[in-house]
Amino acid sequence: HFETVDELLSTPRTPEGTVRWINVDGLNPVDVDQICKQMGVHTLSAEDVLNTSQRPKIETFEDHLLVVARQIRVQDDRLRNEQVSLFCFRDVLISFQEEEGDVFDSVRKRIEKPASRFRSNLADYLLYALVDSIVDHLFPLLEGYGAALEDLEEEISQSPRPSSQRRLFSMKRDLSLLRRAVWPIREVVDGLYRDDSGLIADPLKTFLRDVQDHAMQVIDLLEGYRETASSLNDLYQSSVGNRMNEIMKVLTIMASFFIPITFIAGVYGMNFEYIPELGWMYSYFVFWGVCLTVTTSLAVYFWRKGWIGRDR
Amino acid sequence: HFETVDELLSTPRTPEGTVRWINVDGLNPVDVDQICKQMGVHTLSAEDVLNTSQRPKIETFEDHLLVVARQIRVQDDRLRNEQVSLFCFRDVLISFQEEEGDVFDSVRKRIEKPASRFRSNLADYLLYALVDSIVDHLFPLLEGYGAALEDLEEEISQSPRPSSQRRLFSMKRDLSLLRRAVWPIREVVDGLYRDDSGLIADPLKTFLRDVQDHAMQVIDLLEGYRETASSLNDLYQSSVGNRMNEIMKVLTIMASFFIPITFIAGVYGMNFEYIPELGWMYSYFVFWGVCLTVTTSLAVYFWRKGWIGRDR
Amino acid sequence: HFETVDELLSTPRTPEGTVRWINVDGLNPVDVDQICKQMGVHTLSAEDVLNTSQRPKIETFEDHLLVVARQIRVQDDRLRNEQVSLFCFRDVLISFQEEEGDVFDSVRKRIEKPASRFRSNLADYLLYALVDSIVDHLFPLLEGYGAALEDLEEEISQSPRPSSQRRLFSMKRDLSLLRRAVWPIREVVDGLYRDDSGLIADPLKTFLRDVQDHAMQVIDLLEGYRETASSLNDLYQSSVGNRMNEIMKVLTIMASFFIPITFIAGVYGMNFEYIPELGWMYSYFVFWGVCLTVTTSLAVYFWRKGWIGRDR
Amino acid sequence: HFETVDELLSTPRTPEGTVRWINVDGLNPVDVDQICKQMGVHTLSAEDVLNTSQRPKIETFEDHLLVVARQIRVQDDRLRNEQVSLFCFRDVLISFQEEEGDVFDSVRKRIEKPASRFRSNLADYLLYALVDSIVDHLFPLLEGYGAALEDLEEEISQSPRPSSQRRLFSMKRDLSLLRRAVWPIREVVDGLYRDDSGLIADPLKTFLRDVQDHAMQVIDLLEGYRETASSLNDLYQSSVGNRMNEIMKVLTIMASFFIPITFIAGVYGMNFEYIPELGWMYSYFVFWGVCLTVTTSLAVYFWRKGWIGRDR
Amino acid sequence: HFETVDELLSTPRTPEGTVRWINVDGLNPVDVDQICKQMGVHTLSAEDVLNTSQRPKIETFEDHLLVVARQIRVQDDRLRNEQVSLFCFRDVLISFQEEEGDVFDSVRKRIEKPASRFRSNLADYLLYALVDSIVDHLFPLLEGYGAALEDLEEEISQSPRPSSQRRLFSMKRDLSLLRRAVWPIREVVDGLYRDDSGLIADPLKTFLRDVQDHAMQVIDLLEGYRETASSLNDLYQSSVGNRMNEIMKVLTIMASFFIPITFIAGVYGMNFEYIPELGWMYSYFVFWGVCLTVTTSLAVYFWRKGWIGRDR
Repeated sequence: HFETVDELLSTPRTPEGTVRWINVDGLNPVDVDQICKQMGVHTLSAEDVLNTSQRPKIETFEDHLLVVARQIRVQDDRLRNEQVSLFCFRDVLISFQEEEGDVFDSVRKRIEKPASRFRSNLADYLLYALVDSIVDHLFPLLEGYGAALEDLEEEISQSPRPSSQRRLFSMKRDLSLLRRAVWPIREVVDGLYRDDSGLIADPLKTFLRDVQDHAMQVIDLLEGYRETASSLNDLYQSSVGNRMNEIMKVLTIMASFFIPITFIAGVYGMNFEYIPELGWMYSYFVFWGVCLTVTTSLAVYFWRKGWIGRDR
Repeated sequence: HFETVDELLSTPRTPEGTVRWINVDGLNPVDVDQICKQMGVHTLSAEDVLNTSQRPKIETFEDHLLVVARQIRVQDDRLRNEQVSLFCFRDVLISFQEEEGDVFDSVRKRIEKPASRFRSNLADYLLYALVDSIVDHLFPLLEGYGAALEDLEEEISQSPRPSSQRRLFSMKRDLSLLRRAVWPIREVVDGLYRDDSGLIADPLKTFLRDVQDHAMQVIDLLEGYRETASSLNDLYQSSVGNRMNEIMKVLTIMASFFIPITFIAGVYGMNFEYIPELGWMYSYFVFWGVCLTVTTSLAVYFWRKGWIGRDR
Repeated sequence: HFETVDELLSTPRTPEGTVRWINVDGLNPVDVDQICKQMGVHTLSAEDVLNTSQRPKIETFEDHLLVVARQIRVQDDRLRNEQVSLFCFRDVLISFQEEEGDVFDSVRKRIEKPASRFRSNLADYLLYALVDSIVDHLFPLLEGYGAALEDLEEEISQSPRPSSQRRLFSMKRDLSLLRRAVWPIREVVDGLYRDDSGLIADPLKTFLRDVQDHAMQVIDLLEGYRETASSLNDLYQSSVGNRMNEIMKVLTIMASFFIPITFIAGVYGMNFEYIPELGWMYSYFVFWGVCLTVTTSLAVYFWRKGWIGRDR
Repeated sequence: HFETVDELLSTPRTPEGTVRWINVDGLNPVDVDQICKQMGVHTLSAEDVLNTSQRPKIETFEDHLLVVARQIRVQDDRLRNEQVSLFCFRDVLISFQEEEGDVFDSVRKRIEKPASRFRSNLADYLLYALVDSIVDHLFPLLEGYGAALEDLEEEISQSPRPSSQRRLFSMKRDLSLLRRAVWPIREVVDGLYRDDSGLIADPLKTFLRDVQDHAMQVIDLLEGYRETASSLNDLYQSSVGNRMNEIMKVLTIMASFFIPITFIAGVYGMNFEYIPELGWMYSYFVFWGVCLTVTTSLAVYFWRKGWIGRDR
Repeated sequence: HFETVDELLSTPRTPEGTVRWINVDGLNPVDVDQICKQMGVHTLSAEDVLNTSQRPKIETFEDHLLVVARQIRVQDDRLRNEQVSLFCFRDVLISFQEEEGDVFDSVRKRIEKPASRFRSNLADYLLYALVDSIVDHLFPLLEGYGAALEDLEEEISQSPRPSSQRRLFSMKRDLSLLRRAVWPIREVVDGLYRDDSGLIADPLKTFLRDVQDHAMQVIDLLEGYRETASSLNDLYQSSVGNRMNEIMKVLTIMASFFIPITFIAGVYGMNFEYIPELGWMYSYFVFWGVCLTVTTSLAVYFWRKGWIGRDR
């Protein structure tokens, strides 16, 4: 654990047969350049490290591989999508990260165990372990999205609110971001699997196939979630349509019940001198009777249409 | 039928030329590890068995194949999507399932018949039979979905309810889940078909082609159902729109009929001292005449627009 | 023309150089098995014949080809989607159909002509002719759908009704069914084209390319119809939206015209002892003037908004 | 320029090194057959010529190529989609068209020039020129659609009418038709490019690459237009939604302003013998004050909701 | 820097080992032809330069490459999509642009530095640098779209207006235009990478891989934006639906509160001679009590339905 790059570079290289992992948190252009030059890395690779919106990729050079990946994790309730650049030499692995805090804690713990595989393998095993932990870190994340989608479904089918739609929107954006980060990982692992530079030992390939399977699983889950999100949008739209129908039904029923009888009341509120019914004794009661009849007929009509009384 | 793993492992191996099928229900990590080690299976394969959200896949090792598949069945009215891991050695087949209860009963029955093909074949035939029964078990399931979709169509085009939309949503989710489980099966069967490890006998390949055909049929059906579900969504949306139109038509017609004549009644309810019509004898009857005229003209107008009287 | 299978099987085989076409209508499991066994057909192929929801496919065996196709025809105004299984041996072609009635009448007529090509070719030419007539039979069917879509367009853009949407829905389902039946035909014909079993004579390949072209044409038409159907759905949705707008406009205009003046009438219907206007002589005429002014201003406002008077 | 086929066929063939272009307008089955037989063309090719709903395609025969393409042009304001069949022999090119009038006028003009390339090349150059003019004729057509889409956008975003939606619908159908006609052209040109029959001279391949580029450009434009058309549909739907909102806002505001105060007016129109307010002198003015207060509060409420006064 | 072409062509060629970049702004057909002839360029290539709606492409000739690309930049707040044609000879690079003003300023600056790589490389490096700067110029552009989409999201989810939808529409069109310009760039760079004409030096291939990565990144971003734009459309549609619901709720609540009690007021405004309640002393107060009861019950009903009082 060094604080400055000079300190690091002046440390003697490790003895044969052991692996050295240099992890650089924070991308200071000067330091990155210094390390890259020291290790004999191509200028463009150094630029790739600094340009933190890279697409995951693998590049093979004579004596090393460059793997660019994106680690996605939740920190302070926000999705963080950071670039990790891994230079894998025969017995040195240099990783560059944008900030402190990463998904590699499980790797670190396993390294510290005295009997770990890391002790008996070269840098390729470490590379595999890091890529593997990047992919595996996505599963709990995806489970979170799965649960959130189920909540949203519950909410939307019971009481859809504008906020549901907004949450759905931001979820779709996150899923699309995750997809863009994970799809190319498949190519990266495939590149490692097909590597013929000799840097990746053959026994490791079974492990890489495993990472590949996991990446496929993540993609499958993502596609499933994206479909669900899109169906939820349909569900929301029809929920809104249904609520509208319901509101309009209430309005229509209220208006239909009272508009005709209000008219009748208006008629007998007229001040014409000669309105025969006005003087008749039972007019008032007949009026109520008519009101009742009109309202009842309408009620029957609406009931037949299924607008009232029948459960939806 | 053993209760513990030790019991199983201490049983002597079967004689040459016969096949042994070890079926493990329930995934106890300790037992799985013990069996896997005993059979010389790779650690990652053992992990695959325990990680029950695997995507169907096939992996070829020196002396065995690992086929991971998903068996989907309905139990207690719920869709169960369980992982089945099959290790196929020359004359031993080990299957790991998440729980008791599976889709293999037809295979078991056929094995018990004395003249069954299982007696004269090695483990590869058993492997085929299990994969085949996983695929074939999907047909009745899909028929169920087909029937449910037809019901939904009936319901939606006659009386669309919010619940229809919710059923449609959950059906879409199930279909998407089935699709994710079945698509990779094709690759698995293809992998078996192209297998060059010598574990799959050549005559079996005709049978595998048959499983492949069935898997394609399932996928075709699934895609058809997905399309239908998506069309049903459109149908639902327009049904809701149509109902809205109908509700609004009733409201508009009611309001249009009574609003003008209510106004006229209001006019003659005014208390101005000088309103010439009030004193005229036939005013009241003229009033009714006007009301009738207004209402009739509106009725004609609406009839011409096709809002009333014409069948939809 | 035989009534039972035994009768058929006991008939002597035809002399060298002639072709025998055995057409079996109705799938009696016992008969199918008997014929298949007699001809040396694989058990799975016999099962394929009986399982009538097969996807079109081609399978090559040592001395015969199995082509499974779906013949689609309209009978009694319903779309019938039946399976046809064709076993093509060197000089025998056996066809199994689900029911009597098929799309092969044109082939039968051509066979009966003394100078027909069928007389000078082996079973492969018959196979080609049958597959060709299955594909060609789709053209009049598709023309029917094309015409129906044009009718629907007319209807939807002029007076959209819920029934239009339902017809559109069922048309979409038919098109999707046709698509599932036709897509794999391409692979089948391709399989025949690339056949290396020697059963398909080289000169026939030009004819097969022709069938292929026709299949592509059918698929192109189908895709076009599917797109049109989907656009019609959009058209329907906006037609419904437009009608809604129109209904609401009528309601809003009616309500806006009469609500304010009804209020004014209401005001002067109040029984307050002291309302100065009541006693004034021209109040009633001023009232009508105000009503006219209010209504005219609203009319101008709505006219400016383009809700009345301007043609849509 | 011949009127009958016999006349044509009796004309002696042209001398070595010159090319003869026979263009047949109108597809008379007898004539087509006669010509085809004379030239030694396969029966199926002759059938292709007569079946005018062919998909563009290329077929290679021993001594000639058959190119079927579709020429699309606007005549009398209607889109005409006609089939052109081109038989390209070494030094003869026969073209069959459905009707008089085509897109080849520019080719004809160039041929007439004494120094034109046509004079020094074989039939392949003519074939290229014809296919090229079919593709190039699409550009002005597409520009027309581009302009029409821009008009539609203007119209829809300013005053959407049902007719806009219908125009959009027919535009989508045209674009989909064009697409079906152009996509396979790529394969045709590719087929010419890869031709190994020796009929297509090598130097011509640069020209064919150029046609290919143009076809790709047409397809790119088409796809862009299709996307725009689909976005316009969204725009239309929301324009309709917006108008609806506006209509409803007017209705709601009108109704909300007058319904409460109409009620108050109604209250004091009641004929109860004992209503204390009736006798009070300032009641009428207080009534107007209350009306003003209610209306103002509602106005403020609606203004806060952004329904009135704020610009949209 | 020359003003006429003759001036340029009369200038002696540069000595061995140095590179000459001839940049032509404005496409005068005569000048283009003259230069092309002078350099021995195919007629079709010269036509490609003049036809400024080309799709990006690469063409390999014996002694030069032709790269057609599209430079997209914002000038005067409008998106400009211009064609750049680059002819790359061994030591001469000729670029044709539609107008003055381009995205190559950074390249020019780097060239002027005395120690720049341009001095020690042939024309291929310059070609790479130009293509690179075309691709890299897209990043700030895309960032602008990203920010605009975020603004739109803010606006749409808070106060959707018709103008938002129009902005969204034009953004979708821009993104689709960008996509059509960038997709083929990948093929172009791939063509350069795979080039076997010897014009592209091997060490340059690492740089080309870098351009390829950047192009992929641009495409990824574009696809992400397109998805977001499409989700925003959904968000807009439901925002409009929500506002409608809210408007209708206000209308329904207002109408439901006052319609029944207005009717009651109307009843007691009738002039029947015999209405028992009229004479009763507390009628007026009972009337208010009834009004209050009705309104309160409705309020409770709406509150239960969640239409009032509960926060959305």
